[in-house]
Amino acid sequence: MNAPVKFDGLEVGYDVPALPGMDAADIQTPCLVLDLDALERNIVKMGDYAKAHGMRHRVHGKMHKSVDVAKLQERLGGAVGVCCQKVSEAEVFARGGIKDILVSNQVRDAAKIDRLARLPKFGARTIVCVDDVANVAELSAAAVKHGTEIEVLVEIDCGAGRCGVTTTDAVIEIAKAVQAADGLTFTGIQAYQGAMQHLDSYEARKAKLDIAIAQVKDAVDGLKAEGIECELVSGGGTGSYYFESNSGVYNELQCGSYAFMDADYGRILDASGQRIDQGEWENAFFILTQVMSHAKPGLAVVDAGLKAQSVDSGLPVIFGRTDIEYTKCSDEHGVVSDPDGVLKVGDKLRLVPGHCDPTANVHDWYVGVRGDKVEVLWPVSARGKAY
Amino acid sequence: MNAPVKFDGLEVGYDVPALPGMDAADIQTPCLVLDLDALERNIVKMGDYAKAHGMRHRVHGKMHKSVDVAKLQERLGGAVGVCCQKVSEAEVFARGGIKDILVSNQVRDAAKIDRLARLPKFGARTIVCVDDVANVAELSAAAVKHGTEIEVLVEIDCGAGRCGVTTTDAVIEIAKAVQAADGLTFTGIQAYQGAMQHLDSYEARKAKLDIAIAQVKDAVDGLKAEGIECELVSGGGTGSYYFESNSGVYNELQCGSYAFMDADYGRILDASGQRIDQGEWENAFFILTQVMSHAKPGLAVVDAGLKAQSVDSGLPVIFGRTDIEYTKCSDEHGVVSDPDGVLKVGDKLRLVPGHCDPTANVHDWYVGVRGDKVEVLWPVSARGKAY
Repeated sequence: MNAPVKFDGLEVGYDVPALPGMDAADIQTPCLVLDLDALERNIVKMGDYAKAHGMRHRVHGKMHKSVDVAKLQERLGGAVGVCCQKVSEAEVFARGGIKDILVSNQVRDAAKIDRLARLPKFGARTIVCVDDVANVAELSAAAVKHGTEIEVLVEIDCGAGRCGVTTTDAVIEIAKAVQAADGLTFTGIQAYQGAMQHLDSYEARKAKLDIAIAQVKDAVDGLKAEGIECELVSGGGTGSYYFESNSGVYNELQCGSYAFMDADYGRILDASGQRIDQGEWENAFFILTQVMSHAKPGLAVVDAGLKAQSVDSGLPVIFGRTDIEYTKCSDEHGVVSDPDGVLKVGDKLRLVPGHCDPTANVHDWYVGVRGDKVEVLWPVSARGKAY
Repeated sequence: MNAPVKFDGLEVGYDVPALPGMDAADIQTPCLVLDLDALERNIVKMGDYAKAHGMRHRVHGKMHKSVDVAKLQERLGGAVGVCCQKVSEAEVFARGGIKDILVSNQVRDAAKIDRLARLPKFGARTIVCVDDVANVAELSAAAVKHGTEIEVLVEIDCGAGRCGVTTTDAVIEIAKAVQAADGLTFTGIQAYQGAMQHLDSYEARKAKLDIAIAQVKDAVDGLKAEGIECELVSGGGTGSYYFESNSGVYNELQCGSYAFMDADYGRILDASGQRIDQGEWENAFFILTQVMSHAKPGLAVVDAGLKAQSVDSGLPVIFGRTDIEYTKCSDEHGVVSDPDGVLKVGDKLRLVPGHCDPTANVHDWYVGVRGDKVEVLWPVSARGKAY
């Protein structure tokens, strides 16, 4: 007791929660922990699925914001590159050596467009989404200025109600404008139905995707009738990838959460009615937390609150435990009901966060654990990269 | 168009959203913006109140996590120092030159206790909360080891249902153990009723504080009967400070959110029934966001979603606007209903976030604006300091 945790002359707790080689028991809480065995199995499984179905897999880097995880997905899962949502994220991935990057989002601000147009200079294939013909001239001017080439996917809103055009005519109009513009290449279609990913029922998700696929097929056919081919038709998430893979229309997946899993995704059901975190995917991503007060019977207080996670999709679940429950969250505290008084101060728990993406974005580090040892400490490389 | 925003040879967007001296119109979104005039008025007002009521004001640094804001609160608001919730935050404030620091929380992990015991070496008065007599020996051993002195407040749970003891007997037991321990000084009581701060009705808040004040008074009297004096009786937040200030028991406030304001606090009512963001305090803290898609009529998409804020206390409110409304939030997008079609791509909006503390914790920078110019760029110094 009362000794600082040191490893190989360095001291944890000041700037890092752990160091490679140390015992997992000495990790400072709260922090993010990756179960590397589970993570690798998830990555291999999705990679094998994509390959077996002839799909490219462009992993969604906005989920983990980690160059190291993206490279693991390339190495073990055959990923072709990443997608991400912000130019600042794309810069981090490009600097990290990722060679095929899609900003699966609109880029409209002049300074951001200028930065986007410089991304190919990092050696990265650079693709962006467009949902407004007025954006084409902006992108073109920047690409010409920098002597680079930006590829364009026209984004279709296929039910999520966010960015994207809704008619095949609008897709064709933008595609033609892109083809006519210097410095730009029309590459295909972006169509991600985000809103349906978290519907529990497989059949409910299928119904939404049937509509989306029909919409995308209409656009692809409409373009073809105009003599315009789509190299990429990209979309698909952890709750839908099997629909896109069997659609005959899509040829690229954009799955993210499958690699980490979280409590909200874990609740959705596969075709057989089983929760997807009970067979399809493993929980590989946890918030490690510690009991710091147990002054009242039946109620323990842990050190992971709102500043260690996002609760937009519900409270975290305590991994592997049904005897205790995380019931309340304030800025720096979590309240855990402990009716049988099984917890004591100092105990550590693994929380499965409600929503992995914004939870990862709060932390600076991933502590990669294999068995009872810390194996790696990976930065959340694009943490906070929102602009 | 298509020119990177530069100022004085530097370029914004890569690592910083803005630079001092540039036009506010050129700030990269999404980012945090402080209205410096409003911030300073809030700080002066609370400082004047505390002084007029003979209260020390220990500002809550866990809200803003900023050394620069804390120093402004010392300079303009007469703050005596800060409180914060984590040892890692305390280290940042101590390194930044804050001389009186209370960790208003339990510290139980051995490595964290060791770091706490070294804080006085930074020249900072170091105070911590205790709610378990078993913690006393741990703190004492660390203070003795480092030749330092840690001051202790016994924490009372006065209704929040989190950390803290609930009886005067327990307070006295811990206070005596602290007095008997080497390296420790008993300094008083911590009693913050967090759960009541956000009750809308002034009378409902008063009823909760009446109970808390009676409980604290009982403890202070009980200690006095044992010959133990409290130098500090500390607590009080933005929704309650007038109750503690007039209690005759508390002598130190711990307000945080008053300086920034947020949408959830703003809704609570003062004694006259007026919202506190309509007279008592000004909104000084905003997320600046930009419209990035308007592909569908009636619906604009902005670039601030879950990764630019915490929505635990509700969605953000668009400052100064009733014609448009932020209605939906996903990872990187916000959907704004725009029934009259008044918005266009590129427009910037100021959002008042639902909850200031965890929203500040997502960002690396505060852009301090006065009028139409960026005046300062302050780091969120203790961002992510959760351990």
